[in-house]
Amino acid sequence: MSPIKVGLLGLGVVGGGTWKVLTRNAEEIARRAGRHIEVTAAAVRDLDKAKRLVGDSVMLTQDGFDVVRHPDIDIVVELIGGDTLARDLIMEAIAQGKHVVTANKALLAKHGNEIFAAAHAQGVMVTFEAAVAGGIPIIKAIREGLTANRIQWLAGIINGTTNFILSEMRSQGLPFDQVLAEAQRLGYAEADPTFDIEGVDAAHKLTLLASLAFGIPVQFDKAHIEGISQLAAEDIAHAERLGYRIKLLGITRRCDKGIELRVHPTLVPMSCLLANVEGAMNAVLVSGDVVGPTMYYGQGAGELPTASAVVADLIDVTRLESADPGHRVPHLAFQPDAMDDTPILPVSEVTSSYYLRMRVQDRPGVLADIASILSETDISIGSMFQQPHGETEADIIFLLHQAREGSVDTALDKIHALSFVHTKVTRLRVENLL
Amino acid sequence: MSPIKVGLLGLGVVGGGTWKVLTRNAEEIARRAGRHIEVTAAAVRDLDKAKRLVGDSVMLTQDGFDVVRHPDIDIVVELIGGDTLARDLIMEAIAQGKHVVTANKALLAKHGNEIFAAAHAQGVMVTFEAAVAGGIPIIKAIREGLTANRIQWLAGIINGTTNFILSEMRSQGLPFDQVLAEAQRLGYAEADPTFDIEGVDAAHKLTLLASLAFGIPVQFDKAHIEGISQLAAEDIAHAERLGYRIKLLGITRRCDKGIELRVHPTLVPMSCLLANVEGAMNAVLVSGDVVGPTMYYGQGAGELPTASAVVADLIDVTRLESADPGHRVPHLAFQPDAMDDTPILPVSEVTSSYYLRMRVQDRPGVLADIASILSETDISIGSMFQQPHGETEADIIFLLHQAREGSVDTALDKIHALSFVHTKVTRLRVENLL
Repeated sequence: MSPIKVGLLGLGVVGGGTWKVLTRNAEEIARRAGRHIEVTAAAVRDLDKAKRLVGDSVMLTQDGFDVVRHPDIDIVVELIGGDTLARDLIMEAIAQGKHVVTANKALLAKHGNEIFAAAHAQGVMVTFEAAVAGGIPIIKAIREGLTANRIQWLAGIINGTTNFILSEMRSQGLPFDQVLAEAQRLGYAEADPTFDIEGVDAAHKLTLLASLAFGIPVQFDKAHIEGISQLAAEDIAHAERLGYRIKLLGITRRCDKGIELRVHPTLVPMSCLLANVEGAMNAVLVSGDVVGPTMYYGQGAGELPTASAVVADLIDVTRLESADPGHRVPHLAFQPDAMDDTPILPVSEVTSSYYLRMRVQDRPGVLADIASILSETDISIGSMFQQPHGETEADIIFLLHQAREGSVDTALDKIHALSFVHTKVTRLRVENLL
Repeated sequence: MSPIKVGLLGLGVVGGGTWKVLTRNAEEIARRAGRHIEVTAAAVRDLDKAKRLVGDSVMLTQDGFDVVRHPDIDIVVELIGGDTLARDLIMEAIAQGKHVVTANKALLAKHGNEIFAAAHAQGVMVTFEAAVAGGIPIIKAIREGLTANRIQWLAGIINGTTNFILSEMRSQGLPFDQVLAEAQRLGYAEADPTFDIEGVDAAHKLTLLASLAFGIPVQFDKAHIEGISQLAAEDIAHAERLGYRIKLLGITRRCDKGIELRVHPTLVPMSCLLANVEGAMNAVLVSGDVVGPTMYYGQGAGELPTASAVVADLIDVTRLESADPGHRVPHLAFQPDAMDDTPILPVSEVTSSYYLRMRVQDRPGVLADIASILSETDISIGSMFQQPHGETEADIIFLLHQAREGSVDTALDKIHALSFVHTKVTRLRVENLL
């Protein structure tokens, strides 16, 4: 059978990795796909550099539209990132009747509804395994492996940079800034690390996972997002003493009133597998009503792990290319006419357990006053400990039982108004998961 | 679109679970599959009991052939187990042009080549996600998620009974027999536990995973199989002291000379996620040349987790039913005309690290003699410790570096011939995995 023809948009880290994998494992891939997968054209910034990598057999251009409009090309692989040019190129590829494989989580989290609708109307596939958790086939697992289930919740370490930083902060006892600098030196963090450390990248990915799990449209703008840049080393140490590790988790859960969609640093019990995922590794825990908890672990970023997902998508698309569009796996796991309009819950309606740390004047009555504020707002204390800070102050750490976030906000407002509370209270969420 | 029609062979634990899931999650399933999935007929032992479960809408029979030959049925789900009647029914279903979903690892591990060849010739699908690791979509991950990779090795905890027993032996410090009795009382082990505890069930599953990973025919008869019934509590304790846990692993690895295919108790470093998979849970670690290590975790058995996999297969088959047979995912992940004839290595050619424990007379020169035997057979010692046993004996524990199994056999023959070695040497394999 004749090879399927691929056009690459971008030959950077992931594009170069994709080229390498398609070349190096060409035989293994054809043994699986039943057809060779051939890169026919590529849009690149630097033509000479690209030519040194791919030689003469690939048409090279600096204009992505030359690729998406190329009549021979069956599948366009978008790896340039961003949400302006990438969006235009993908929409044009779809209009030209090409299938699209992309790793662009930011684009899909923001414009996925429009892109998937266009693809559905044109009868083409848009696949994005590489957009979440790199080489871990988590999208396939949720979209196809757990289809028997009403998925209840999922929680994932879906940003390697922040997991690396948190692992180092804990194991070395170092502050955030110092570890970030080290991560940048090692290439685990970018020169401008904002998207990673502030949780935005994780929220892009979580948005996609929530759609796949619950059959809801992508709603990135409704996600609650907190990063790790404000996380103090002492909270990591306190958590450890309490039997927890702090991970930046993306959590989405189906509740009676709506769907939780939130990214924040989270205390996770040490006995939980997720707490033991260290360094730049990713892992996603998915709980279904039939299967119970399942977990998926692997490298979440990097040239080859991401290329592994891009190429797996290429093989899927190759296999399904000739299938009747009505019988392919739906883009967002559910049929487009069967999407769910359950709303995303505002964070004030989320229920969680909490960790609070506050610095107070060390005098009688302080604990009683704080405890009575918590009690008035219907928040019950699981455990607490106090340690002196200097001569006249103390740090109090509480673990609270499950409470509504809005109630905790109210309690914190009252606690902040107390004259003997000297700093802003640190509030972290605790999830026991399994 | 009209519902797809399913015939169940067996309405026992997994069959009943499948019925429950198809009924309970009917809407969620149709939202995903784009079509309702309807059980039209079932072959059961007890007609009255079955009628109480499924009511009047399902045709009930005691003869499985009534189901596989029923003209309305599109997909046959085989859940009766065993390899005689189940085989005849599946072959007849294929001959009748029905697709087949099965959880029968024993049958596929022994007769898979014949069954898949018949299915290929007829252009029907035979899917078996439920045959390995219950609800974990491990077959889909290997067959479709990691298709970009030349898979290098995989190692899995793929039998929940033995993992439960090993977890209890370690955490309670109890001997095998006592924990087995407890496992039987709790329903984690069957009345005749032989297939589980002797590693046969794990070897059935490993045989299927190896075929999917490497594109080789199923070759259960070539697997090296050791169970846990001879495992001593003291070895679990010694392993713990050395920083390892003992797990019954199924391991398959592509080497220069052939493919390793082996099930045996294995020392795994505590820092490895696999070592922390406790109780009846399953987990499979898969390493690909592109993606690196990935891991998949969840419940490996039981009514609902297994039904989760059966129903996921039903949805896959429903989606692909109308697709051109030449473009469906191949049964064993590779195209039938592209299978690999790399041989399975005899266990004597396997390379591994080793744990040895021996009881010796406690007198000078003993260690020197043993060490020189190891040295003569090119085996190097990683670490050792000795502890007294009574007045005149001692136990010596060695951790050996990588060696060929055949060399270790030779060394053990010589060690067993030493007059001061009083018991058969305990030999366990050590895998550092990550």
